[in-house]
Amino acid sequence: MGIFSKDIKNMNDLFVHQLQDIYYAEKQLVKALPKMAEKATDKQLKQGFLTHLEETRTHVQRLEEVFRMHGAAVKAVDCPAIDGIIEEADEVAGEVEDKSVLDAALINAAQAAEHYEIVRYGSLIAWAKQLGRNDCAGVLQKTLDEEKAADRKLIMLAESKINLRAAS
Amino acid sequence: MGIFSKDIKNMNDLFVHQLQDIYYAEKQLVKALPKMAEKATDKQLKQGFLTHLEETRTHVQRLEEVFRMHGAAVKAVDCPAIDGIIEEADEVAGEVEDKSVLDAALINAAQAAEHYEIVRYGSLIAWAKQLGRNDCAGVLQKTLDEEKAADRKLIMLAESKINLRAAS
Repeated sequence: MGIFSKDIKNMNDLFVHQLQDIYYAEKQLVKALPKMAEKATDKQLKQGFLTHLEETRTHVQRLEEVFRMHGAAVKAVDCPAIDGIIEEADEVAGEVEDKSVLDAALINAAQAAEHYEIVRYGSLIAWAKQLGRNDCAGVLQKTLDEEKAADRKLIMLAESKINLRAAS
Repeated sequence: MGIFSKDIKNMNDLFVHQLQDIYYAEKQLVKALPKMAEKATDKQLKQGFLTHLEETRTHVQRLEEVFRMHGAAVKAVDCPAIDGIIEEADEVAGEVEDKSVLDAALINAAQAAEHYEIVRYGSLIAWAKQLGRNDCAGVLQKTLDEEKAADRKLIMLAESKINLRAAS
């Protein structure tokens, strides 16, 4: 996209741009999740990150499917938001000494990424429907459901033990 | 915070660090929201951004109150996540030609900021309670409720007219 040009001329362009944005984000998360799993101390949290890594690989494939269904080139555009979220996660994790507190910080960082994706997929689904692409909306909905489930699992894990242990 | 030191030694340090992070984020949003209001075409959306600007100013004050209640210095630390979210909002907005599509993009950008805050306040409240600071949790809860309400208003506005208009 050109910095001085106005490349998004209609809703379809915005939809494709946002697909490219979340495609980049999912691919960055495929790189970030193994590092988060490595840092996590709690076994359930570590396994949770690895399970979500597999889901995230599926999300990348689903986006490629949506690009094809919609007749758009499979392409990523830089997404400063997810870069910032991952950078912040790295920074905070690097400053935590206590392992239980690190787990609490990692859960919070992962939730920030989940919620970013929840917002983007929510809009993509709404826009796909407006564009008459219920087929694309259906594929994107599967991913949104998994992102929301991943967020709920993180909250449960935090509330059931991680926060308790971190504060003790 | 030092890059090579491990400055977060316990849950209390993580709580204070996250307060400093969201304090920076709220202050950045005080700067960003007037620009978003200026770009918005739809009158209700424009007014929504201005109303949320007033709320955001209150959120800054509430954080200062929590710092004081907790006996911590009022301080901000860089928050690459919110910087990335705002940078991305600027970039996308700069590329949109059609005014109705721009409104749809602005709503989505604002939602990304709301959800970032929802995640951070959610954890801050949980951590405050673990630390026995129900007083701080109570103040933070007021802001969380307002962030969630702002997100719901944005969704309603998008679904009731903005997306419809943008796709027409």
